[in-house]
Amino acid sequence: MPSIITPVILVGGSGKRLWPLSRESMPKQFVPLLGEQSTFQQTLLRVADRGLFARPVIATNDAYRFMAEQQAKDIGVEIDLVIEPERRDSGPAMAAAAAYAQSQAAESVLAMASDHMVIGVEEFRAACRDGLAAVERGGIVTFGIPPTEPKTDYGYIRPGGEHIGGVQKVTAFVEKPNAQTALRYIAEGLFWNASYFLFTPEVLLSEMARFEPAMAAAAKDAVAKAKRNGSTVFLDADAFSRAPAKSIDYAVMERTDKCWVVPAKFRWSDLGTWDALLDVGQADSAGNVVEGPVEIDHVRNSYLRSDGPLTAVIGVENVVVVAMDDAVLVGHRDNLPRLKDVVQRMADGKHKAATEHAVMHRPWGSYQDIDRGERFRAKRLTVHPKGKLSLQSHKRRAEHWVVVRGVAEVTLDGKIMTLHENESVYIPMGGIHRLANPGDEPLEVVEVQTGDYLEEDDIIRYEDIYARV
Amino acid sequence: MPSIITPVILVGGSGKRLWPLSRESMPKQFVPLLGEQSTFQQTLLRVADRGLFARPVIATNDAYRFMAEQQAKDIGVEIDLVIEPERRDSGPAMAAAAAYAQSQAAESVLAMASDHMVIGVEEFRAACRDGLAAVERGGIVTFGIPPTEPKTDYGYIRPGGEHIGGVQKVTAFVEKPNAQTALRYIAEGLFWNASYFLFTPEVLLSEMARFEPAMAAAAKDAVAKAKRNGSTVFLDADAFSRAPAKSIDYAVMERTDKCWVVPAKFRWSDLGTWDALLDVGQADSAGNVVEGPVEIDHVRNSYLRSDGPLTAVIGVENVVVVAMDDAVLVGHRDNLPRLKDVVQRMADGKHKAATEHAVMHRPWGSYQDIDRGERFRAKRLTVHPKGKLSLQSHKRRAEHWVVVRGVAEVTLDGKIMTLHENESVYIPMGGIHRLANPGDEPLEVVEVQTGDYLEEDDIIRYEDIYARV
Repeated sequence: MPSIITPVILVGGSGKRLWPLSRESMPKQFVPLLGEQSTFQQTLLRVADRGLFARPVIATNDAYRFMAEQQAKDIGVEIDLVIEPERRDSGPAMAAAAAYAQSQAAESVLAMASDHMVIGVEEFRAACRDGLAAVERGGIVTFGIPPTEPKTDYGYIRPGGEHIGGVQKVTAFVEKPNAQTALRYIAEGLFWNASYFLFTPEVLLSEMARFEPAMAAAAKDAVAKAKRNGSTVFLDADAFSRAPAKSIDYAVMERTDKCWVVPAKFRWSDLGTWDALLDVGQADSAGNVVEGPVEIDHVRNSYLRSDGPLTAVIGVENVVVVAMDDAVLVGHRDNLPRLKDVVQRMADGKHKAATEHAVMHRPWGSYQDIDRGERFRAKRLTVHPKGKLSLQSHKRRAEHWVVVRGVAEVTLDGKIMTLHENESVYIPMGGIHRLANPGDEPLEVVEVQTGDYLEEDDIIRYEDIYARV
Repeated sequence: MPSIITPVILVGGSGKRLWPLSRESMPKQFVPLLGEQSTFQQTLLRVADRGLFARPVIATNDAYRFMAEQQAKDIGVEIDLVIEPERRDSGPAMAAAAAYAQSQAAESVLAMASDHMVIGVEEFRAACRDGLAAVERGGIVTFGIPPTEPKTDYGYIRPGGEHIGGVQKVTAFVEKPNAQTALRYIAEGLFWNASYFLFTPEVLLSEMARFEPAMAAAAKDAVAKAKRNGSTVFLDADAFSRAPAKSIDYAVMERTDKCWVVPAKFRWSDLGTWDALLDVGQADSAGNVVEGPVEIDHVRNSYLRSDGPLTAVIGVENVVVVAMDDAVLVGHRDNLPRLKDVVQRMADGKHKAATEHAVMHRPWGSYQDIDRGERFRAKRLTVHPKGKLSLQSHKRRAEHWVVVRGVAEVTLDGKIMTLHENESVYIPMGGIHRLANPGDEPLEVVEVQTGDYLEEDDIIRYEDIYARV
């Protein structure tokens, strides 16, 4: 009987519906939406009980790889990374992750999203344990969330009479209903489909082979031909590209007769829209959830959040206000489904803040524009312990570095020097240089660039420990 | 007959009702509310016709003195400054300005606010010329604005039958009416009181001497004992403090029988609230005025402005959204009168952005925080041509200066050096230093401070050309 579950966490998506907190450069799962940790980190911690769960496998792509790695490291969780060469929806991703888990002799797999909220870790783990009984009998087990309202943007699960303990047979997965149908579904005892799936790799892959043989074959092949670097596995691009792009629900779950459902006793939200944040937050007596430096006056039933700017909100109802240093959202709750299109319009209009955060993450750490003028640009660089920027030079700018925290190892034209807090160095135009953090705490440097062209693409890389040369 | 008018521009007030654009550190009249220039600058330019107007006198206080001076300089207008030792409402300010103008042999004075909008400069000047006919006969002339709606937050002027050309005798100044009374006033042909007054200094002061002898005497005495420094006149504090604090309307205008009114043919707004900005702006077909990087979707009858952050506004009506890097306002138009209280609450809560702009103005130029961490702070300093910071030292911080524009003259422990763009200098803790701009274009410096205490009050000043030692 499988008693150890390998969590497979799917990390993708651009999260436009939670703009401006979530943007393409750092989508929703990596953002601290609720509390101090990101939902990705909260997901990792939810499966951190090594008596029940094995080391998790993160299925993601090149864009989010370093962020996933760093965020796991920050909370002390070791992970395997399976890198998808391209985004092809959840079917191929889950199949490849299952095939990879199989190659690592995983007994069972729990496929889960990285951007959901779960309250009740014990109840969550109990649901996993309960589910194993059906997995043992060759089932694919999902968690059914008891509906609290007639949501029209969720799929529903219809349970049947057959039982294994508390686990019920699924008779149908049904599509997003209209409001009237949703009400009927609730009356009939259907569950919300939260898209968690627990299975043995063998069963998932054999069911997929029945319905989507090309997908199953491509996924297995992409794993067989994968290249490994430490705990990172790069799926073979050619093989993976042959998998039809479909969601796992369409590809397998809605077609197999092997699905079972565990009624969830934990509280769940997909945090899909700002409205969800109002639902799950601690509302005051006027129905407002307020986060950060926000002063409200005559405001009702609203989500009000500032991650920086001092924000005054006066005399409005049923709105969402999210203020950041470089981007602001004001929206009526009824109109929030428009946000995705609006963000796309802003992106089309070349507004950087539509897709990029002020803080940009890199394998070695992050940088943030702090000022900009006609012929200068100032940034704050944060370098992870042991992080190392590439050995590089610039044709059209000089740089001044002032160390404001930690220890820097600076290479300049072949010489290596060590700088401490309150020390600085000048990198002339054309100088071949590198910044590294030899220490155990983060290194922070204020960089002042001067020159007539100050964009990221003025860079010649000579060497890079992250293989970006 | 007086043919040359000395403009007296009153500059005071903290402008909370236009927060966050207007804050105590730089109130509404100095902010570019409409277009590129501040309303103070627009006011100066309105009276720049030296065939009709003499060099203007600015009545202000120490807090706004350098800002007024700099903004006048920036548009090439020479001014006299009369500095009030304390704020005592408009009566004493206007009396002192009139007494000062009298001492400078002014023929007539036009007292005006610095924070109003006027569209129609020719019509404005025509109104001034028309008014002079009544001034010549010993009158105090005001401009009556033909009402466009039954405003309840303006005072009204009732004209009588007596005429001098197009100038009508005033029979009463009436207080802010309720909505019904306001409608009746409009029907009866009353004007809005915009608080512009044209008079000879002799007449204003003699009328004031009738009704408020202490105010008139204190103002004359404050001018007689004033200290002059170049074109800046510092009213005597003792004398000025003896003037009762009252508005000029209460002190004189509502009591004298010498008032006349010129019906204004120019368009006018006191820009008193954000709503006024919507009134005077160019609205689109949905009734929205949009300024800056704002994307709207299903929005109606709203004022939407960003002075920086990318802003999305979705599905709201009759709101004002004003976004800045460090502060955001979202308010329903009906509730905007609450803003003043809300700003006060935020100020009481020690939120810096309630009262201070990101850019802080100093006599030598300005500075702006661009980044801040545990033991460091980065600023951008902008030094006016010929501007000079004080000779100073700090006990608990060192500073790195990188020149990013212009030429810097740096004094450090007795030595003077010249730095150009892309050059830097290190000011160690305790070093006695000074930054100056010897050039003709603005100097910009990125300053990185490190230390365990980084506030403005860690400063020992040894010498200062602005007398701040």
